[in-house]
Amino acid sequence: MIPVDGSISALQWQNKELILLDQTKLPEEEVYLTCTDYRMVAEAIRRLAVRGAPAIGVAAAFGVVLGAYELLASKRDLVTDLEPVFRELAETRPTAVNLFWALARMKKVLAAGLGATPEQLAQALEKEAVRLYHEDIEANLKIGEQGAALLADGMTVLTICNTGALATVAHGTALAVIRTAVRQGKKIGVVACETRPLLQGARLTTWELMKEQIPVTLITDNMAGYLMQQGKIQAVLTGADRIAANGDVVNKIGTYTLAVLAREHGLPFYVAAPTSTIDYNIPCGAQIPIEERSGDEVTQIQGKQIAPAGVKVYNPAFDLTPTRLVTAVITERGLIRREEWEKTRA
Amino acid sequence: MIPVDGSISALQWQNKELILLDQTKLPEEEVYLTCTDYRMVAEAIRRLAVRGAPAIGVAAAFGVVLGAYELLASKRDLVTDLEPVFRELAETRPTAVNLFWALARMKKVLAAGLGATPEQLAQALEKEAVRLYHEDIEANLKIGEQGAALLADGMTVLTICNTGALATVAHGTALAVIRTAVRQGKKIGVVACETRPLLQGARLTTWELMKEQIPVTLITDNMAGYLMQQGKIQAVLTGADRIAANGDVVNKIGTYTLAVLAREHGLPFYVAAPTSTIDYNIPCGAQIPIEERSGDEVTQIQGKQIAPAGVKVYNPAFDLTPTRLVTAVITERGLIRREEWEKTRA
Repeated sequence: MIPVDGSISALQWQNKELILLDQTKLPEEEVYLTCTDYRMVAEAIRRLAVRGAPAIGVAAAFGVVLGAYELLASKRDLVTDLEPVFRELAETRPTAVNLFWALARMKKVLAAGLGATPEQLAQALEKEAVRLYHEDIEANLKIGEQGAALLADGMTVLTICNTGALATVAHGTALAVIRTAVRQGKKIGVVACETRPLLQGARLTTWELMKEQIPVTLITDNMAGYLMQQGKIQAVLTGADRIAANGDVVNKIGTYTLAVLAREHGLPFYVAAPTSTIDYNIPCGAQIPIEERSGDEVTQIQGKQIAPAGVKVYNPAFDLTPTRLVTAVITERGLIRREEWEKTRA
Repeated sequence: MIPVDGSISALQWQNKELILLDQTKLPEEEVYLTCTDYRMVAEAIRRLAVRGAPAIGVAAAFGVVLGAYELLASKRDLVTDLEPVFRELAETRPTAVNLFWALARMKKVLAAGLGATPEQLAQALEKEAVRLYHEDIEANLKIGEQGAALLADGMTVLTICNTGALATVAHGTALAVIRTAVRQGKKIGVVACETRPLLQGARLTTWELMKEQIPVTLITDNMAGYLMQQGKIQAVLTGADRIAANGDVVNKIGTYTLAVLAREHGLPFYVAAPTSTIDYNIPCGAQIPIEERSGDEVTQIQGKQIAPAGVKVYNPAFDLTPTRLVTAVITERGLIRREEWEKTRA
């Protein structure tokens, strides 16, 4: 078992099995899924048992490792036969780039290991996945440090979706910033948008913050503007699923609306994400594919039908916030302010 | 039975009983409540079995009539003993002014009838409630005509909550505008925000529009900004619960956010409401009381718990949209454009 610095972890790699906290069951039940093959990992990503851009990247990397050990056991060729494993994992979700980034890292190991024995290759893949796992923890701790300076004592921060330990290996991205500020002794209040349709804010963010006694107030998504109008919010802080090379941010549906509202009320709008979320191959956000999910997610809440049968539904899972609305992106390497995107192309 | 021009009606006055369509049960079940005393009417308003500013005004008026007949049967004095009836009905909900306006109309009848027999007084009250009922239908038909000219063929209109037949005696306010435009032969698409916490958009607006084959697409509230960004919306059209003398609009929570988004995207933002919704005694919106309802409405959806037990919740039922964001208010007497509020104080 890999030791995790933090009380909650979305995933663990243990005895060559990937153990996932099934986030579809929270907050009522803490159920753990033991994934013993890559198909289980792919299915867990598809149905959001594991979710959050950084977490699905690391989960997919361990999916490759499980695929490699399976091929090894049946004495098949890793270099050619891992191809369908990569493909199935890559096709689970289209928007978050961390998934493709993590799979690309795994492919590089495979390419670098040509000539190695299958055993050596599988071990190298496992080592790389474990490295990704630890890198994520490291990045999040640094994001927390980089961002905490932006939060002053007494601030109330509005957030959407879950960008916490559950969305990463540990600590989280936007919630790491809040956690670090709180550990520095600042009093920080959090307002969590419930985040329809799948209620990650209501189910996961509240659960995480309540576990750590960080004060959190739950609202429905349509209340955010009114709270800002009343002066109850001092900053908006979200995660990101993919950031284009020009700084456009694709994140959970509803993020764009919060950014427009933040500007209307003169509030800073921060995005916390590891640099692996920045996709330098995509010049601007309009080219990032936005996943559309089943209408049932909107018409049914935890199995309860809430709208007439047969109603037409539109269910984009993400939206696009243009750079001009983003005060700064908080990465493990420091802040990238609105004005600085031109300079970041390395 | 009072004939209703329109297929759906939130309330009917029949054989000295008020029959309400229980809107908490829609869309799964069409259950009718027969209110035989004013306490049942008050309870129905409190628990939103009947809701919508115009509908609760008319329902409360019939509540007074039921109270009057009850006093008459027990040979009590109507003028003095109706006071607690008025009070209980007035205390059901604080925000929509139509409730107080309708009760004031009923009180005037009582004052004008000093010296009449109790029988005559009760009949005069019934007559006034029936008049309010018909006036509402008339007003809504005229709102529909006044507003329909604003909607061009091919437009898609975004709306929130339910402002349809169910929110009024018949036809609706914002939905009357859409209905009239459709009857004029225009192709109008509707996007309905689901309207958390109580899902009036998902449950009621979709149900009403589907009954009339008006094309409707359901979204979660946090999707509105993204649809506007994509150019999928041409106008926003909402109702109102109370409009201050300066044109500030108090309406369902989420309305303010839609108004900010509409301006950001250069879209017109229209509010449809009868003049009875305008409260000339309140100079500006900040003085309108905003009802806060139980946190359970946020943490439980149709009996299902969706957030951790004990989580802190903020649940304002309405918000405030300042005049500057409202392109025009559509009333039965014509449009009141943003610039015209100064002139409207009669």
